[in-house]
Amino acid sequence: MRTGIRFLVAVLLVLSLAAGAPMRADEGMWTLDNPPLKRLQEKYGFTPTPEWLEHVRLSSVRFNDGGSGSFVSPNGLVLTNHHVGAGQLQKLSTPQNDFVANGFHARKSEEEPKCPDLELNVLVAMENVTARVMGSVKPGMNAANALKARRAEGATIEKEAKQGADQHAEVVSLYNGGEYWLYRYKKYTDVRLVFAPEQQIAFFGGDPDNFTFPRYDLDFALFRAYENGNPVQSKHFLKWSPRGAAEGELIFISGHPGSTDRESTVAQLESQRDVQYPAQLRALRRRLAALRTYAARGPEEARQAAGLTFGYENSLKALGGEYEGLRDKNIFAKKQQDEAVLRRQVAARPEWQQSYGDAWDAIDQAEKKASSITGALIFQAAIGPSLPNRAQQIVRYVVESKKPDGERLPGYHDSELESLRFRMFSPAPVYPAMDEALLADALEQALEELGPDNGFVRAALAGKKPAEVAREVISATKVGDVAFRKSLVEGGEAAVVASTDPLIQYARRIDPVRREMRKWLDENVTGIETPAGEKIGQARFAVFGKSNYPDATFTLRLTYGTVKGYPMNGTIAPVHTTFYGLYDRAYSFGLKPPFHLPQRYLDRKDKLDLTTPLNFVCTGDIIGGNSGSPVINRDAELVGLVFDGNIESLVGRFVYNDEKNRTVAVHSRAIVETLRKVYDAGAIADELQGKTAAAK
Amino acid sequence: MRTGIRFLVAVLLVLSLAAGAPMRADEGMWTLDNPPLKRLQEKYGFTPTPEWLEHVRLSSVRFNDGGSGSFVSPNGLVLTNHHVGAGQLQKLSTPQNDFVANGFHARKSEEEPKCPDLELNVLVAMENVTARVMGSVKPGMNAANALKARRAEGATIEKEAKQGADQHAEVVSLYNGGEYWLYRYKKYTDVRLVFAPEQQIAFFGGDPDNFTFPRYDLDFALFRAYENGNPVQSKHFLKWSPRGAAEGELIFISGHPGSTDRESTVAQLESQRDVQYPAQLRALRRRLAALRTYAARGPEEARQAAGLTFGYENSLKALGGEYEGLRDKNIFAKKQQDEAVLRRQVAARPEWQQSYGDAWDAIDQAEKKASSITGALIFQAAIGPSLPNRAQQIVRYVVESKKPDGERLPGYHDSELESLRFRMFSPAPVYPAMDEALLADALEQALEELGPDNGFVRAALAGKKPAEVAREVISATKVGDVAFRKSLVEGGEAAVVASTDPLIQYARRIDPVRREMRKWLDENVTGIETPAGEKIGQARFAVFGKSNYPDATFTLRLTYGTVKGYPMNGTIAPVHTTFYGLYDRAYSFGLKPPFHLPQRYLDRKDKLDLTTPLNFVCTGDIIGGNSGSPVINRDAELVGLVFDGNIESLVGRFVYNDEKNRTVAVHSRAIVETLRKVYDAGAIADELQGKTAAAK
Repeated sequence: MRTGIRFLVAVLLVLSLAAGAPMRADEGMWTLDNPPLKRLQEKYGFTPTPEWLEHVRLSSVRFNDGGSGSFVSPNGLVLTNHHVGAGQLQKLSTPQNDFVANGFHARKSEEEPKCPDLELNVLVAMENVTARVMGSVKPGMNAANALKARRAEGATIEKEAKQGADQHAEVVSLYNGGEYWLYRYKKYTDVRLVFAPEQQIAFFGGDPDNFTFPRYDLDFALFRAYENGNPVQSKHFLKWSPRGAAEGELIFISGHPGSTDRESTVAQLESQRDVQYPAQLRALRRRLAALRTYAARGPEEARQAAGLTFGYENSLKALGGEYEGLRDKNIFAKKQQDEAVLRRQVAARPEWQQSYGDAWDAIDQAEKKASSITGALIFQAAIGPSLPNRAQQIVRYVVESKKPDGERLPGYHDSELESLRFRMFSPAPVYPAMDEALLADALEQALEELGPDNGFVRAALAGKKPAEVAREVISATKVGDVAFRKSLVEGGEAAVVASTDPLIQYARRIDPVRREMRKWLDENVTGIETPAGEKIGQARFAVFGKSNYPDATFTLRLTYGTVKGYPMNGTIAPVHTTFYGLYDRAYSFGLKPPFHLPQRYLDRKDKLDLTTPLNFVCTGDIIGGNSGSPVINRDAELVGLVFDGNIESLVGRFVYNDEKNRTVAVHSRAIVETLRKVYDAGAIADELQGKTAAAK
Repeated sequence: MRTGIRFLVAVLLVLSLAAGAPMRADEGMWTLDNPPLKRLQEKYGFTPTPEWLEHVRLSSVRFNDGGSGSFVSPNGLVLTNHHVGAGQLQKLSTPQNDFVANGFHARKSEEEPKCPDLELNVLVAMENVTARVMGSVKPGMNAANALKARRAEGATIEKEAKQGADQHAEVVSLYNGGEYWLYRYKKYTDVRLVFAPEQQIAFFGGDPDNFTFPRYDLDFALFRAYENGNPVQSKHFLKWSPRGAAEGELIFISGHPGSTDRESTVAQLESQRDVQYPAQLRALRRRLAALRTYAARGPEEARQAAGLTFGYENSLKALGGEYEGLRDKNIFAKKQQDEAVLRRQVAARPEWQQSYGDAWDAIDQAEKKASSITGALIFQAAIGPSLPNRAQQIVRYVVESKKPDGERLPGYHDSELESLRFRMFSPAPVYPAMDEALLADALEQALEELGPDNGFVRAALAGKKPAEVAREVISATKVGDVAFRKSLVEGGEAAVVASTDPLIQYARRIDPVRREMRKWLDENVTGIETPAGEKIGQARFAVFGKSNYPDATFTLRLTYGTVKGYPMNGTIAPVHTTFYGLYDRAYSFGLKPPFHLPQRYLDRKDKLDLTTPLNFVCTGDIIGGNSGSPVINRDAELVGLVFDGNIESLVGRFVYNDEKNRTVAVHSRAIVETLRKVYDAGAIADELQGKTAAAK
């Protein structure tokens, strides 16, 4: 009797699960050549047409310094996050005019200043070049030579593909190397600033609230792409949704996720967990402390340090969450299980086992070697100061650019030089005192972590103390001067060798050590893992077909999902927040930083409709690099602007969990509400909403 | 060199910790005879005087149906939570006048209705009676007889102590039985309702938000104690703080925490984790489902079920959080370690080992026996319906009250009969249809869990089906009628035996089985664990001195702490919320239940100062039963009203963690703000704030 009842319950449960279960999670960062049409049709009854996909792709913009955006008017207006645009805001600012802190508003075209070194890319074509890249490797080549052959072939393909000054071509490795694709971009290098709110409202709640929904942030900024001195007449742009994101609706996110590690092997994840993350976190924490010490010197120092401080805090929180994910035994067990399943299926067919079976062990061996030098890699990089990197670029440029294209270091191929020069010769301001503080700290840490006998430490310090070296090489250098940089590059290797600039000399001292490290890595790690990764990618195709999406690679991806809350910390998170919540959180903390409000938000509170949605969440699958991505509806109308993932999404680097993983976006209505009522920027709101488009 | 630097860093770290470490956590539910004066002086530089302690004690009120409160005016006004008073609100309501949903406001004394069965207690004296209770156990007594002797002695002490009709006496076991105390109370049974807001604002956010800060709840209600038909002139009451709770200030909470298990042995915790919690959660979940089905029949059924639904949901969430805490390996390891330390210290001294050393193993053995009948205990209790419990009380009363006092079942001693009759003869409405649904479900579950051959199941069902039995015994019973209950009690055992009332007959059928179970428990579990617990309590005194507080026992306790936020879900929780946040959360969910607002909160939004603090958090150490406790400052002024613990505090049943454990309270300013601006209840606000006290 009891058994009977229980059995019946069990059957009903199975039935009800069966009725509800076929819906798959809203997972995946899909390339535009392979959108998940079947899943979309099954779950949402919607199939984007080729025209829809093309329109979205050509409306999507990559911010090459690390973010996403989209065209939002026929006159070249580009929407992105404040925190994506903040680097340019900082570079356009002066001690007298701090656009980061105070915001910026161009009331007419002539008031739009040109960004010093912002390059935007739009993906115009994609071509599968797997056969060419893989075919470049000839039987009998050793690991290092095979790697060189692949890179050389990639560089050749890119060079052949590039047709004009406004073109850019990249060969990207997808599916763990299972495929190689040529991506061709239209590029824009005359990009001007149109509007930015105060950082305090764009990043309300600061580092504490970062990544934790509910959020209340107006994290947007507007730029305009120009060509030949005139605003771009963009045929493809996203129309503004009159309603904005609504609960339960299907949405898409089109953007450029930076990188994920969902296809990594267990051995690679173990290295990350046990070696890479701890060292990286150690480096970042220490540099952040040094930066804060610098910022505490005075208001101008604080202004200079603001952008980098955000970057470090943001990275620390993201990496910290990812690291927790790696240490979560359940997550790791799932990774082990998935790998075991794949390996068993490969082993079950002799021809698969023959072709792919040795890949995992090869990577395991390589990772063991790699782990021995992870610390050196991270601490020799001496992350933080920017002038030493500029010096290294010059030192390498003059050497590399003379070599045959296929022989060069990555980053110095012909196809890359134009964008590289654009960055190298940026007129953006430099902050030598900040760089000196950061370099001193980085060298101090390298000394502590690697010891005085380490090759890099010896080359960098040359017998002196870290602070001494930093002072010597930064205080007297002219590398901060664009004309000086240009003169060295034009003078070539001879000019560089002859230069008495202390930072150039420093860069020349350490360059051989770093090149040596890179060579060792190519021979012992990258050269082994690249073909092994290709095998695993192909094994997945063999076993599962091309039914999945590749790891993120800072290339254009389409993800989809639902506007939807989630269970959070014992309760439920709402679909969206409102302006009431902004004032609640501000007054809950007594308006103390980072919960203070720009004065105009206190003055104009009564003008705002406080019920207006401010931020919202959806199940789209994103990661860093997606910042600034448009959230669009079925009609490809813009309903929101991605700016964050919730704290529960940080493990998304390794696994996606649609119960709690959420993308956090600025609601489109919040943008026009504040443009009109807080900023008196009705003309910009009109342009976004297409109200004066015809008249222009 | 590297070692040198690291060593220096380590030394500095130790020094800085040493400088910051002596502050102890704000832990402990202290009895009023043993307040933590030394800790308070060391950490806060404050030592409450004996007068301060007496004043707070005599201002504190126990709500005997399970909560706390305090006198807040010289005219007997008592402040507690809406959810503590909700049982009386429900009992005072009718289908036409639903005070739970709509709130209540008496504009003058004559409009204050008398609560049907509310008894308030004020602790007037405490006396250590350990020697008498323990001395009642004579050498050679077996476990069951020793237990009986203890109980008889306790009953005698209570009876001797009770002096008048408004007095109540209880012997309580503290420190695991290491001490027994006589607590004497002044009691109030004429308690009238003064004010209650709508449940929707008192319990805004409903079950999802329950236990999760930030919260936005006006969870208060006001009663008035009467004596001889007039409001009590309370000499001791808490003055209203003009400012309310402020960040960083020292606060105290005086209330009646129900029960904790911090002194339980590892064996007891294991039983809870592995047997008791799972069964209890199963019982509650099922009963809640039955209750929801009943409530779905119509609005009147929903009204009847509202109070119990809240109770079950609340219990499920609390028990669920506690259960998670028990399953947390770190917490359990700490418990094991603490016990191992105590046992090692006991074992180190032969006389301690001789006196206390066998206690843990004795409990371990008893728990193993107890686990075998946990399911029976929980499912025979058939929790849910109230009429069967009333019938059981009658059946037992007529038998027990005739026995010598020392021979009776707990709950039926002379000292307890007056309060018992007050509850038994309550004129509160009964809901037979709801009881029938709940009883049917409870019997169904007992049948499923215990099987048809279980003694209770056989006695209860008597060969019929659960639903049939429930219909038969509930539909025709007159137990819902106070006069009928009185007639049976007055008629004594003969009247009960002769009664043909089906519910009385049902109660008589199952009573022997339940008594048998109780007897078995006394002999095999309680009789063993009581002396063993006493030993462990005494062992703690021997090893640590009386430096600690006892587990909660629904007796008056003083706890202290700081008004302070905490790290939460990746960010920080503020010290308090504001009315802005109430509207944010309401509009974030589109005003959908349980996030809708009473109409007057929509109508009067503009009258409110939305920056007013609504709820706040502090580090005081509380648990269920503390609901309604006043939060007071150094001057014993009322600054808030406890109504919740955060979700992170649920493990507090077993361990206290002051990093994240927080008490959640209604801010005193929110109460007067809404009384004045939303409810036009200025006279009540005046009484609270002492503005017309002189005139009355």
